[in-house]
Parts: sequence; structure tokens; C-alpha cells
Amino acid sequence: MYHFCKNIEAISAYKPGKPVKEVERELGIKNSIKLASNENAWGFSPKSKAAMEEAIRNANIYPDGASFYLRRKISEFHNIPIDNIVVGNGSNEVLAVILRTILREGTNVVSSQHAFPVYKIMTQSCCAKFTAVPAQNYRFDVYSMMKACDENTAIIMIDNPNNPTGTYLPYNQMMDILNFAEKNKILFIADEAYIEYVRAADYKTMMNVFDKYENLVITRTFSKAYGLCGLRLGYGIGNKEIIGLAHKVRDPFNVNIIAQYAGEAALEDQDFVKRVVKNTHDGIDYLYSELKKIGLNYIETQGNFILVEVPGSGKEFFDKLLRYGIIVRPVGEDLHKHIRLTVGTMEQNKKAIDAIKEVIKG
Amino acid sequence: MYHFCKNIEAISAYKPGKPVKEVERELGIKNSIKLASNENAWGFSPKSKAAMEEAIRNANIYPDGASFYLRRKISEFHNIPIDNIVVGNGSNEVLAVILRTILREGTNVVSSQHAFPVYKIMTQSCCAKFTAVPAQNYRFDVYSMMKACDENTAIIMIDNPNNPTGTYLPYNQMMDILNFAEKNKILFIADEAYIEYVRAADYKTMMNVFDKYENLVITRTFSKAYGLCGLRLGYGIGNKEIIGLAHKVRDPFNVNIIAQYAGEAALEDQDFVKRVVKNTHDGIDYLYSELKKIGLNYIETQGNFILVEVPGSGKEFFDKLLRYGIIVRPVGEDLHKHIRLTVGTMEQNKKAIDAIKEVIKG
Repeated sequence: MYHFCKNIEAISAYKPGKPVKEVERELGIKNSIKLASNENAWGFSPKSKAAMEEAIRNANIYPDGASFYLRRKISEFHNIPIDNIVVGNGSNEVLAVILRTILREGTNVVSSQHAFPVYKIMTQSCCAKFTAVPAQNYRFDVYSMMKACDENTAIIMIDNPNNPTGTYLPYNQMMDILNFAEKNKILFIADEAYIEYVRAADYKTMMNVFDKYENLVITRTFSKAYGLCGLRLGYGIGNKEIIGLAHKVRDPFNVNIIAQYAGEAALEDQDFVKRVVKNTHDGIDYLYSELKKIGLNYIETQGNFILVEVPGSGKEFFDKLLRYGIIVRPVGEDLHKHIRLTVGTMEQNKKAIDAIKEVIKG
Repeated sequence: MYHFCKNIEAISAYKPGKPVKEVERELGIKNSIKLASNENAWGFSPKSKAAMEEAIRNANIYPDGASFYLRRKISEFHNIPIDNIVVGNGSNEVLAVILRTILREGTNVVSSQHAFPVYKIMTQSCCAKFTAVPAQNYRFDVYSMMKACDENTAIIMIDNPNNPTGTYLPYNQMMDILNFAEKNKILFIADEAYIEYVRAADYKTMMNVFDKYENLVITRTFSKAYGLCGLRLGYGIGNKEIIGLAHKVRDPFNVNIIAQYAGEAALEDQDFVKRVVKNTHDGIDYLYSELKKIGLNYIETQGNFILVEVPGSGKEFFDKLLRYGIIVRPVGEDLHKHIRLTVGTMEQNKKAIDAIKEVIKG
């Protein structure tokens, strides 16, 4: 006899931003600007484009089930052994697969208020409990997170930098909680999706210590600085035992062929990534300066987006911006006074600022 | 404290066929013919190709998280409501997601000997038990499967037609076991990946009764007759409650944008599918006739592949065929005397038959 897991029935599914053409159709507008999903306004490398075109010709062939060539390329890029790498249908799948190797009813995951909302859904999908420890001034509080762990805590999950706040944890705090997790045999997941955009001097990647800790998994994505979110491609790095189990639990052909080809090519064009990051930083600096002039509070960001506190509710402000053809993300929940604004091209940023000014004028 | 699930540690990961270029590199051969993975030798529709080319341009944008347009197209194609449809990263992901909504430690899945081997891995990934009921003359024995169910049986899984045997269950037997499952509150999954190739007169799709049974889920794929296995695209159909839970459990952006575009276009070109099926049937008839002449036993197939009994072991025969540049699948396990031969173009089929003759000559 089958029963659905109560925990699963209780899940509120993640609500992605609407596709632009849906929004335009509903509102009867055109040429709107979507700054809602932290997408890359500069697209992707021409090398990735050529690789995608080649891959299309082979769409009737199964992708390499082990993503061997891409994993070899990642292995060279980070200078780590291939057996420590698993590739997924977005880093989202890598995270979900790692959770599934460990979580079950009765276990729990400790993370933070304001963490990437999908973490909670993933945890509930495994019939486990998700604990969101209160943040301090929008930042994760690693010491309170340690206190929140109990004997059933199987995983601590941190996205660093964090989406949607743009905040980050300095290296020393990450090491403190990683050491705590090691001592208590808790798996520690560091999701570094936005790492390419980081400017904070006291931030460091956990890749520095990946081979020193058996309980550490790091995830990366091609969705942000590489501009390939449409293809779904990310990877996880950790010790061979955990990665080996992830390979068992993942679907046998989990990564599509277009993504595998494009990912290999993307890693070869680091100049493209540098340009994207430079443009993003220029955009952030422009937006900071304009938001200050307007008098709106924002949180300093290490990502490609800015969380801005707006008059009224974020949802109301979002609705008003829509009428000017600017689509942002009303974050909701604990951040209902905020909108999240993705950094676009300078032209898009200027149009967004103009629209924000108009909305505030009322 | 984390523990890995013992059941997961015990999984033997699915071994996909090697990519052609790997095999060629290892053997130092060129222009080999891969008839090992039930891929579509005629590629995909030109409409799908055009759609993929368009999709590439949007690879820096997230795919529609709900696969709305593709689900609407599937809904029109089958004339069923959109809320009864979930799309996945291959039907493989749909199956895995459905299993995850229900299975946990202590539950079990009843299927058959010779069933698609990934079913067992999926079940073990959920820490549940997989029962493979002995087949009769390579065919699933639904009445023994019913007897094998107990109070902890949550799911009965049947691929019909079955890969790798090519056998099928007639409609009356499918209805008998579906009714049994309904009575015992067991979820019934009918995987119809190969349905387009079926010629048996007493076969019918379970789509006929999808809205009559609350415990029925049907899966379909774009990997076979539509020729898009590289993109990873499949879908599941069932009652709104189960499908709604699947939407909660799946990753929020589970289907890549290239697959979504190509799938919509593929459904619009049924003439392409008809040609593929006609060519496949011609190939099957040719192979039957040649295998008879050679004196090799085979199992009549409803798929795009034939299971052939070979002298010695399947693995030995596979190795010998490799030297002639013909790559087939040695099935292994209970079918260690067999090779599975995918139907290719007539030229490929002829080369395969020539190579088989040479190997038998010794």
C-alpha cells in the first residue's frame, strides 16, 4: 500500500519567475527588461555557442553517462582528481543528489534564514526537517547555526555568497563551522554558485581545503558567470566516497549532451568570464550610486544582483515596476519589504533606475 | 551525524554503453557502427533541429520551470488536461521523482526479472526493496507478480514493451494487474518508452484508462522514436494528486531549454515518427530473416532492438563483433548468452549481419 510522505505533501513548490513572454502577454507590453532571475545579461562565450551547435548534430545520441570529458576538463581547471567530481543537471541536481544519499525521516538539515529557498524544498523532499537559523542583519550567523545542530543533524548547508541577500561569510567563519561539522560528523555543503562575482577581500573558496575534510562538498554552476542557465549544468566536488555515492544515486544520463559540450568550451574561455564580472561590477557600482541618490537602502552584494528595500511592500513595488516594463523579483517571506534586482547591461540598469524613480514619484 | 544509506552503498551503478569515440580510441578503429543503446538511426525531425537552433540563442535564460508550453502541447497531443502532466529530464527523471514521492525504508517495489535495470537502482536510491519476479520465457508474469506483492508493496513497475527483451504484455494482462494494484492501493507505473514501435495486435496503451484509475502513472519519452535522447526529455501522465506531488519533488528547473523547444516541435512532426517506425520495422523484418538463415535464436521484439542468443557468452560475442567495428550491448546478468542489437539503417543492419556471420565462422 502506498502513502505519500506528509512532508512532501506540505512542500510549497518553488515559484520561478515567469517567462518574459508570459508577463508581456498578460500585461500587453513589449520589449520589457527581465532583471528577476540573476541571469547573465552578456549571454555566453562564442566558444560555448559553437560547441552547442556541434552538440545539436548529436542530439539523437545519448550523452556520455559519466560526463567523462567534461569532468576531465573540470579536473584540469581546478587541478583536482576526476574521481572527486560529479556533474549535474544544474548544481541544483548535485545538491539534491547529495541530500538523497544521506537524509531520511528523522534527520535534519541546518541552514539559515534567507538561504536559497530551494534548500528547504530539497530537504522536505527527503522527508527530513529543515532548520532555518535566524540571520543577523541579513547575514548568516554561523555560531547560532552550530548551536542549532543536534544529534540528528546530518547536513549543514550554506550558500556563500548567499542568494537572495548578496551577503557572504568570511573564510574564518566558514572554517569555524566546517571544523565544527567535522567534529560532529555532519556533512558540510558550501554552494559557491556566485563565487566569480565576489569582491570581498576576506572571502575564500572552500576549494582550498577540499581534500582536507571528508565531510565537505562544494558546488559550482555554469548558470551565472558562464551564462548557461538554460542548459542546466553544475558540478560538485568532495571526497571520493561521497562523490561515488552521488554517481550511484544520480540518474544514469543526468546531464544533457548540449550542456556537456557547452560546459567544456565555457571553461576554456575565462576571458569571457572576466568581462562578465567586470561589467557586473561596473553595474553594481552604478546601481549603488543611483540607489543612494534616490535614498533607497540596499544590501552590499557579492553576487550579480542587489537586494533593495523599497517603500510599501516588495510585491507592490514589483507590480508598479512591471507597468514600466521592468521585471524584478519580489522576494517575499521575511524579505517582503525588498525587491531583488539582477544587474543587467548598463542600458538596462539605467532603465531600471529610471523606472524606480518614476514609481517612487508615484 | 550523517550515515549513508546501506541500500545506496550497495547499488551497482548503471553501466551505460561507452561513447563511440572512446571505443574507437581504445581499439584503434574508425567508422564503427554503434547499435548498442537503442538510439534512433534516423536522427530527429528537421522541425526539432530548427527549434534547437532557436533555443541555443536563449541558453543564458532559465528554462520555463513549469515546462508550460511543452506541457500544453502534450496536453493537446493526447487530449488530456495539462494538470495531469509532468515533464522530466528524460522519462528516467519522471520515474525517479514518482518513486521518491512514495518510497521509503521498509516499502518495496514489485517488478520483473529482465525489467529495465535502472528500476532497481532507482528503488535502492530510495532505500526501498526491489523484487524482481521471475519471468516466463522472457515475458513478465503478471500473476506471479501479484502473488509477490505484500502489505509493504508501494509500487508495481512495468515497462511495456520491455527493454532489453523486446517482449510485451497484452492489454488484458495489464488491466488484470492494474485492477489488482488498485484494489490493494498499490501505485502502478506503465513505462511506455517504446510504444511507437509496437506491432502486436493485442497491445494497447494505458492512456486509454489514465483517468479511470487514481493509482496509474504512464511515462513516455522523446528518446526513442523522436530521436532526442541527447536532450533528456520525457513525461509522465497520472492523476492530479500524484502529478502535483511530482511537481513539488522535482528540481525547479528540471528540463533544459533546448529540450523544451525541441520537444514541442517534435510532437508537430508525426510524419517523421511514422517514417522512423516504418524504417525500423523494415529493419526488424530483415534482421529476423537473416538471423533465421544464420540459425540464431532471437526474441520477437516490440521495440527498436532485438535480443539475440549467441554462441558462447554475450560478452565474448560482443568483443568479437567489436573487432569488425560493430558495437552491440552484451546484456549480462540473467541474459549472459545474449546480445541486444539496436535496429539501424539498412546499411548498418547489413554490416551487422555480415559481422555476425564472420564471428560465427570464427
